[in-house]
Amino acid sequence: MANKKITSRDVDFAKWYTDVVTAARLSSYSNVKGCIILEPNGYAIWEMIQKTLDKMFKETGHRNVAMPMLIPENLMNKESELINGFAPEVAWVTMGGSKNLEERMCIRPTSETLFSDYYASVVNSYRDLPLKYNQWCSVMRWEKETRPFLRSREFWWQEGHTVHETKEEAEQETRDMLNVYKKFFWEYLAIPAITGRKTDKEKFAGAEYTLTIESLMYNGVSLQSGTSHYFGQKFSKAYDIKFLNRNNELENAYQTSWGVSSRMIGALIMVHSDDDGLVLPPKIAPVQARIIPIGDSSEVWDVTDDIYKKLNAANIAVEIDKTEKSPGFKFAEAEVLGIPVRIEVGARDLERGVITLVRRDTKEKIEVAAEADIVTIVNDLMQVMQNDMLKRAKDRRDNMTYEARSLSEFENIMNNTPGFIKADWCGDENCELRIKEIRGTKSRCIMEGEKPLTGKCVVCGKDADKLVTWGIQY
Amino acid sequence: MANKKITSRDVDFAKWYTDVVTAARLSSYSNVKGCIILEPNGYAIWEMIQKTLDKMFKETGHRNVAMPMLIPENLMNKESELINGFAPEVAWVTMGGSKNLEERMCIRPTSETLFSDYYASVVNSYRDLPLKYNQWCSVMRWEKETRPFLRSREFWWQEGHTVHETKEEAEQETRDMLNVYKKFFWEYLAIPAITGRKTDKEKFAGAEYTLTIESLMYNGVSLQSGTSHYFGQKFSKAYDIKFLNRNNELENAYQTSWGVSSRMIGALIMVHSDDDGLVLPPKIAPVQARIIPIGDSSEVWDVTDDIYKKLNAANIAVEIDKTEKSPGFKFAEAEVLGIPVRIEVGARDLERGVITLVRRDTKEKIEVAAEADIVTIVNDLMQVMQNDMLKRAKDRRDNMTYEARSLSEFENIMNNTPGFIKADWCGDENCELRIKEIRGTKSRCIMEGEKPLTGKCVVCGKDADKLVTWGIQY
Repeated sequence: MANKKITSRDVDFAKWYTDVVTAARLSSYSNVKGCIILEPNGYAIWEMIQKTLDKMFKETGHRNVAMPMLIPENLMNKESELINGFAPEVAWVTMGGSKNLEERMCIRPTSETLFSDYYASVVNSYRDLPLKYNQWCSVMRWEKETRPFLRSREFWWQEGHTVHETKEEAEQETRDMLNVYKKFFWEYLAIPAITGRKTDKEKFAGAEYTLTIESLMYNGVSLQSGTSHYFGQKFSKAYDIKFLNRNNELENAYQTSWGVSSRMIGALIMVHSDDDGLVLPPKIAPVQARIIPIGDSSEVWDVTDDIYKKLNAANIAVEIDKTEKSPGFKFAEAEVLGIPVRIEVGARDLERGVITLVRRDTKEKIEVAAEADIVTIVNDLMQVMQNDMLKRAKDRRDNMTYEARSLSEFENIMNNTPGFIKADWCGDENCELRIKEIRGTKSRCIMEGEKPLTGKCVVCGKDADKLVTWGIQY
Repeated sequence: MANKKITSRDVDFAKWYTDVVTAARLSSYSNVKGCIILEPNGYAIWEMIQKTLDKMFKETGHRNVAMPMLIPENLMNKESELINGFAPEVAWVTMGGSKNLEERMCIRPTSETLFSDYYASVVNSYRDLPLKYNQWCSVMRWEKETRPFLRSREFWWQEGHTVHETKEEAEQETRDMLNVYKKFFWEYLAIPAITGRKTDKEKFAGAEYTLTIESLMYNGVSLQSGTSHYFGQKFSKAYDIKFLNRNNELENAYQTSWGVSSRMIGALIMVHSDDDGLVLPPKIAPVQARIIPIGDSSEVWDVTDDIYKKLNAANIAVEIDKTEKSPGFKFAEAEVLGIPVRIEVGARDLERGVITLVRRDTKEKIEVAAEADIVTIVNDLMQVMQNDMLKRAKDRRDNMTYEARSLSEFENIMNNTPGFIKADWCGDENCELRIKEIRGTKSRCIMEGEKPLTGKCVVCGKDADKLVTWGIQY
């Protein structure tokens, strides 16, 4: 696999992306149209993401549940009336065994309906609140065009659904979970995502407002990477979630939902990877180090085993390449798989008392004494790589973030050097639609804590108090 | 909830079961017919099961993947022809969005089809083998009658699917995974399950043979608790999984599959629990100890916090009941939830320099010095409880395992004291069907390494070389 040619990302980015997915054996197309298979290498990344985020969710007081995968049409319709919802893009189950169902059911495209229906049955008093639940599952949306991780009919995600006593507490939850996502993106994925509020046009239709986390890919295209919705009482009114409040009055509860998906694996590829294959930040890599013995001498194997034992005991995810392929092939395979640290143990190196470490991100070779403290060296190196990967991604993001003070400037930038563009906006949807005419550019998010550039809308010139980041999206 | 009345299990076992499920808030019925909701307490047990088994699977060289949840009809039919399969009991998706599908698809009832189709596309040479993959997911079977955990349209499980170069290796895998399950049942669930081979009538239709793990519930009813199938080349011929073997010849690969499900939570209830609610073995309990402060003095809180910190630092899953309910209510709630160790910290006890530990399984109260090494005490107590629970379940199983040397003896036992019955069998399906006339009794498994009782079939009297354990099943 490692010897398969990967198209250069500067020549054909889309082809490069699918080549990396294939070469690193992350996923493959199935014979089920529009559905992918998460192969072991891809699923292992998803497991690392799950493990890390799940811990963060539990530390912030959330518990996991499992809701049914099917939603009866009448239950779905309550939501559809509210948000002009998912009906055009769901899969409908109409038969059970050989019988037609009296009422058809859809495979969940998202589970606000099921959680709200459940909450209505269990919430009675303010003493029952808050309920802060999360679900890891796959969902189904009947997409026409699909691309591995970025868009497929079935995808894997988590969906948090919470219900609260007060507006303030629910809004705080919406904000807190956005911050959890942001921390995860910066500290683990090494992706310098930006955050802010979606415009009304781009928010989830059922939400009072949507907070979003947005990443910039290597080719300047934006990826909506996660959202956190404040629902207010919209769903609780539609689904009748009422509780006796502290004044002994019946009140509708306040809700949130928030989610991130296997799409993040697509972001990892498009932010960090290169023409030799996958590059993964050490903190999210399922295998952090691979030892490649070169030659078959007992000394090589002794040193290999010794390093393996030490790293393994220090909880570094390490493996030995015991295949009978050539060293060159093994190096290339470790590269294509995105293993952060390659450790070469060769007879000639050992004669000089050294082993060679190779960083995946920069390909830098580092000779260290065979007798050195390998655990500290590898841990330190991984920390440096983690920091460097974030810094490089941030520098690139900054270099590809432009400011536009006029519509012509906006058009010029977007037509020549796509990326994030910051520009002032008056709040009028018509101005947003005008910008969409420029290569389909959409508002990514309204920046928080950043002042407008000119105070005038970049489209209509009227007063503008919002600085918006715009971009072309996947 | 803890004050809700639970029906006595000796009065109405079925009612007792659903009362425990409800009182411990493990699952609830949804408004999706036949589908349950795994509530946080139930899902937390499932997470403990997943975590423990997943580690055992990985230690035995398996990797996780995710296959699509839908199976196109033509792909499903390949299996149906082979095994007269699941078609009568699947949910059919016939519409995507507003359009009828050209080919309907079913929601997976199991994934042999998808794995086999995938393996056919990736297996080329003996060098590619073995592939040992597993999937954690939910599956859907259109059951008519449903009971929480035991039988519901959607349930949660893992399904291992492996493909091998030789018959011997695949048969070894089938055996190895049965042994993994057995170890898990005995050491973690404290359930003394028996294992053996299914008769041809009771095996999975697509398998050459099925190994099974069978548990005996408190009421003498058997529960098929997990299966490991040896497929030989049946699926690999139907799905064309061929590889170039070491003699450079094309050969069909050898396959296995094996699975256990959320049904195990039902087994935990029906083996260990009592009229006060859930009882969980410490090794699988999501919360192992709950501290209940009695009174509100600073001394009580200091000791409570101190114990919490020590247990938490020792990786014991501990929590403090900080609610404002009465001590009696708190005790009952810890009981109904099945928390193994209750730690009561009371002002009056502290005056005497003691705290009180209460075992959930026996309700035994144990006073220990407030200054004692609480970590060692709790760990030792949990180990004793784990052993005692297994021993009690094993003693009960042994007491409810009978031997029948004639059909009348068989009928007499099964009509009066249901349980496992051991009896010789000649291998003729007609004799198996005759036994089924006795309250629907089925063969559980053919015992391995145990000699026949008389050497004559308990039904027809002909020579019998098989000792079979029989029982009424859920």
